[in-house]
Amino acid sequence: MMSVMTAHRTWRGCVFIGTSLDGYIAKPDGDLSWLTTPEPRPHSTDKGANPALVWESFFPTIDTLVMGRTTYETVLGFDVWPFEGKRVIVLSSMLDTSDRADIARSVDEAVALLTESAAERVYVDGGQTIRAFLSRGLIDELTVSIAPVLLGRGTRLFGELDRDVLLTLRGHHSTEGDGLVRITYDVATR
Amino acid sequence: MMSVMTAHRTWRGCVFIGTSLDGYIAKPDGDLSWLTTPEPRPHSTDKGANPALVWESFFPTIDTLVMGRTTYETVLGFDVWPFEGKRVIVLSSMLDTSDRADIARSVDEAVALLTESAAERVYVDGGQTIRAFLSRGLIDELTVSIAPVLLGRGTRLFGELDRDVLLTLRGHHSTEGDGLVRITYDVATR
Repeated sequence: MMSVMTAHRTWRGCVFIGTSLDGYIAKPDGDLSWLTTPEPRPHSTDKGANPALVWESFFPTIDTLVMGRTTYETVLGFDVWPFEGKRVIVLSSMLDTSDRADIARSVDEAVALLTESAAERVYVDGGQTIRAFLSRGLIDELTVSIAPVLLGRGTRLFGELDRDVLLTLRGHHSTEGDGLVRITYDVATR
Repeated sequence: MMSVMTAHRTWRGCVFIGTSLDGYIAKPDGDLSWLTTPEPRPHSTDKGANPALVWESFFPTIDTLVMGRTTYETVLGFDVWPFEGKRVIVLSSMLDTSDRADIARSVDEAVALLTESAAERVYVDGGQTIRAFLSRGLIDELTVSIAPVLLGRGTRLFGELDRDVLLTLRGHHSTEGDGLVRITYDVATR
C-alpha cells in the first residue's frame, strides 16, 4: 500500500523539527526553552560537502504546510502570521472553517487536498501529524535538530511503527553556541 | 546528592553506544544487524576541529568496564575475549563469581569497587546499566552513534529522569557508507 501511495504522489513530505537527545519535542508542560537556550551564534561550525538544511534555506522551498489544530492555534496567537504566501492545511475533526487554513478531517482528506492543489513540497509539523504521515509512508525528507539535553519525559517525536523506516544520510552540521546537531535524511530504501 | 557523589568521584563514567534515530539500542528480538548494515567504509567524511570519538580512539583510554549480566554473558560467548587487560565489573544479583570479572550486586557496590581500584575512565555499557548510572549522575561523557533507521519498537537507550541532564557538544562526524552520525557530549551544567 505504501508503494502505491508513493507512486501516485507528486509532492514530497518534509519534516523539520527539534528534539532532545532522548527524542522529546516538548516537556510535559509544553515548555520549549530547552530548545533555544542559550542563544545560538549566527554561524555554523561545519561547512562540509553536504550540510544539513537550515530553516532559512528549507522554508522557502516549501509551498504547503500540514499541521494539527494545537500547532495551528499556537501559531494563530503569534503577533505575525509566519506562513504568509503558503497554503496551510489543518488536520482537525473539530474546526469547521478558518480564514488562514483549509481544514482536513483525516490524513486521507489532507492527501486529497495536497493532490488537488498540485502541492510540491509539504512541511509536515507537530508530533501527532508527523507520526501519522510517517506510518503511512508519506514523509520523504527529515531534518532533526538534536538539542544537547536529556529531558527524560514529555512528548516524543517518534512513535511505534509496524516496520523499519530506512533513511539515507544527506548531511549534518552543528551551530556554534547552542550545541544543536542538525541532521538531514532522505526517507528511502537503500 | 548528585553533586556530593560527583565531588568525591575520581573516575569518569563514559558511554559509547549505537542507537536508531528513534532511540532504540536493540530490536525486540535482540537483532542488531540494522546497526552495522551495510558495511561501513574505513574513512570518516568529516575532519572537523572537534570530531566525535571513534571506537579505536575511545577504547584504549578506558581502564575499567561496567556492564549488566546479559551483556557480559553475550561477550563471554565470543571467540576472543575483547576486554583483555581491562578490569570488568558485572552488575548482577545472580552471579556469584566469574573468572573474567568482579561481581557487584548494586550500583553502590560497583561505585565502591571503582573507587577502591582507583579507576580513571570507566566504560559503562548496556541499556539498564547506562540508565542506572545516568540517573545517579555517574556519567560524564556520552558518545552516541545514530544509525539511519527508525525501528519503532525495541529496547530504548534512555529512560525516565527526574530532572534534565544538560550536555555540552564536543564534536560530531559521520562515516561514509553506513550513514552513522556519531556525536560526543560532555555531561555538564552549562
